[in-house]
Amino acid sequence: MDFELIAKRAKQASLEIADLTVDIKNVALLQIAKDLENNYKSIIDANRLDLESAKENLSDSVFNRLKLDENKMRDIIQGIKDVVKLENPVGKILLKRQLDDGLILYKESCPIGVLGIIFEARPDVIAQISSLAIKSSNAVILKGGKEAVNTNKEMLSVINSALLKVKDFPKNVISQVFSHEDVAKMLECDKYIDLIIPRGSNKLVKYIKENTKIPVLGHADGICHIFVDKSADFDMAKKIIIDSKTQYPSACNSVETLLIHKDFNKKEELLNELKNAGIELISTPDNWAFEYGCKMLAYKVTDTPEDAINHINTYGSGHTDCIITENDTNAKTFMQKVDSAGVYQNVSTRFADGFRYGFGAEVGISTNKTHARGPVGLNGLTIYKYKLIGNGQIVKDYVDGTKTFKHKDL
Amino acid sequence: MDFELIAKRAKQASLEIADLTVDIKNVALLQIAKDLENNYKSIIDANRLDLESAKENLSDSVFNRLKLDENKMRDIIQGIKDVVKLENPVGKILLKRQLDDGLILYKESCPIGVLGIIFEARPDVIAQISSLAIKSSNAVILKGGKEAVNTNKEMLSVINSALLKVKDFPKNVISQVFSHEDVAKMLECDKYIDLIIPRGSNKLVKYIKENTKIPVLGHADGICHIFVDKSADFDMAKKIIIDSKTQYPSACNSVETLLIHKDFNKKEELLNELKNAGIELISTPDNWAFEYGCKMLAYKVTDTPEDAINHINTYGSGHTDCIITENDTNAKTFMQKVDSAGVYQNVSTRFADGFRYGFGAEVGISTNKTHARGPVGLNGLTIYKYKLIGNGQIVKDYVDGTKTFKHKDL
Repeated sequence: MDFELIAKRAKQASLEIADLTVDIKNVALLQIAKDLENNYKSIIDANRLDLESAKENLSDSVFNRLKLDENKMRDIIQGIKDVVKLENPVGKILLKRQLDDGLILYKESCPIGVLGIIFEARPDVIAQISSLAIKSSNAVILKGGKEAVNTNKEMLSVINSALLKVKDFPKNVISQVFSHEDVAKMLECDKYIDLIIPRGSNKLVKYIKENTKIPVLGHADGICHIFVDKSADFDMAKKIIIDSKTQYPSACNSVETLLIHKDFNKKEELLNELKNAGIELISTPDNWAFEYGCKMLAYKVTDTPEDAINHINTYGSGHTDCIITENDTNAKTFMQKVDSAGVYQNVSTRFADGFRYGFGAEVGISTNKTHARGPVGLNGLTIYKYKLIGNGQIVKDYVDGTKTFKHKDL
Repeated sequence: MDFELIAKRAKQASLEIADLTVDIKNVALLQIAKDLENNYKSIIDANRLDLESAKENLSDSVFNRLKLDENKMRDIIQGIKDVVKLENPVGKILLKRQLDDGLILYKESCPIGVLGIIFEARPDVIAQISSLAIKSSNAVILKGGKEAVNTNKEMLSVINSALLKVKDFPKNVISQVFSHEDVAKMLECDKYIDLIIPRGSNKLVKYIKENTKIPVLGHADGICHIFVDKSADFDMAKKIIIDSKTQYPSACNSVETLLIHKDFNKKEELLNELKNAGIELISTPDNWAFEYGCKMLAYKVTDTPEDAINHINTYGSGHTDCIITENDTNAKTFMQKVDSAGVYQNVSTRFADGFRYGFGAEVGISTNKTHARGPVGLNGLTIYKYKLIGNGQIVKDYVDGTKTFKHKDL
């Protein structure tokens, strides 16, 4: 089908799902969970097809992300059930203000509209994003990687046949496209698509950011820093750095650069402990703005906390940066001045995650400076509208002084 | 000076102003107000130069917007004093959550960074945007129209010499560029500029939106609708439509299209009254998505309220749309289903304005679906960061089950 038509239908669907009750949305989510359970075998079969043709071409890590098994399917289904439990993010009154007698302004959360999701390898993204989109009353157009085409088709077929069973649930809320040309068309389609969310490699995200005028929610780089201040506790520093680097080195919230205050008196001991933990230390990298994604860690000695802050604001990606210190004044300054989505004191950078923040589920992590920043949950898929209810008020009366505004929050 | 250098210095200034106390910011604003008062004459002189060279080339309305007089200067200075009274939008705790014992997450409002402002004719924009930027701790690069170059230079010179007198106020918070090439460089400068705010014609805003990857806050079109439902009160409809069209026809929140339910029984009378008020009615426009900006008004009879909603969602610009009705169910449906920044019941569309909403001052009106929508006040110039404070927590403990999250809002 023509992309423009798919997008136009998605737009129409977004208008229809916008004011669906939370009850219908939850019924739809539970139906999807149930049908994924019941069609478990057909999805695994489709996934096997993808795995067979992928075997020779994909790296181990991509292969593992592509592969669905019983555990992953259970997590997917549980994930959808968890979204049911989350509060309805739509229809929240964010402000209620009396402008004048009988003239009431409401600021109310509402869905964004149509989301374009471009993702690689992981077929679980379909279920996760679809359920978040439904709960937040957005329509979604999914474009997965070609290596997962059979799995993705089967998964969406199960989801859409589940939605067909739900009374009053609009059509075309979740649609899918497959070709490379569709990606280009999606990125151009600012007429119908309101937000693009890329899920995949830095390269994918960068390509998307450079090729669309539609707002993009996400991050390309995750260049996180830890600064060990003069007063840092040795054991705490060691524990946090090892966790931040080795617990899952390819995650975007893993640390890439270690900054150490010149007067921290156990520097050599600390570096030795890191080496013992399997971390490869790099003292003069060509590029301080580099995401290793493995157990390599750049490090540098700084003269002052300000030098560390400047280094982070210059080379960081605005993702998550941590100070290890027993000096609360230094911590406060660091957390004020470092311009990142997450600024931490005495905590592993790996905590930067929607589940760990208690958002229930996350769309991704954003390093944007507008809309949503940091781990993005359901609220990041909403915007608001102003509703103004009166009984015939006109502006002329307030301009010529016949009436004056009261502006009283209710 | 090279644009890149100006932008780099603005970025540095944005980091320095980020955690300035509200007291220093207010002192700076009052100093600006005072110095503008004291240098009133030099600004008017500079404005006279601009007016003289503009005389032959500009339309009356542009000339009037360019012209500064005593009243306008008084409004400008009062506007700055009003911003002093507004609440500090930075440092607000939006969420405080205990993730676990001794592990506290804060979501705290903070400035966006560097704003690029591109505006036409009106030199009062400099004072207005500068004061909003200072109050919200953002740096700003201003690019005004060449027709106001003398006024703009003098105004900024007064502002910056005022800021120099304020102890601890960082340098380069407000800077200005002048050439057409600087506009192109500004739109490309996503390395340092976080948000572009255009203030001017539809043509200017469209050009900017099409030529930058930096988020743009604003609206190109203001195609507002009024739907007169079957049950509408005749007098109220008449009054609201006349105000919405004639009170200030070139404003973006003026109505452009009137939709009338086929069963509204005083249609002809209503149209006659509108004609008597000087409104020129257009029954078959070539283009329903057209902003007249004068006393012309397109109109159409619709079969149902749903037809009106569909018309608005198809041809509207998502700015402000109103239903006139005595039927609250129809009003509710209309306000849910119309996908616009402002949805009104029985009120003039001209109320769509930051001052009238009680935001104190506005940056502009946004039809975006992300970040800020509708009239944008100080809060639209902020984003947030997450601060996480712990005492050595690592993720490994929560992954292997040694510890579990508490996720308790405080």
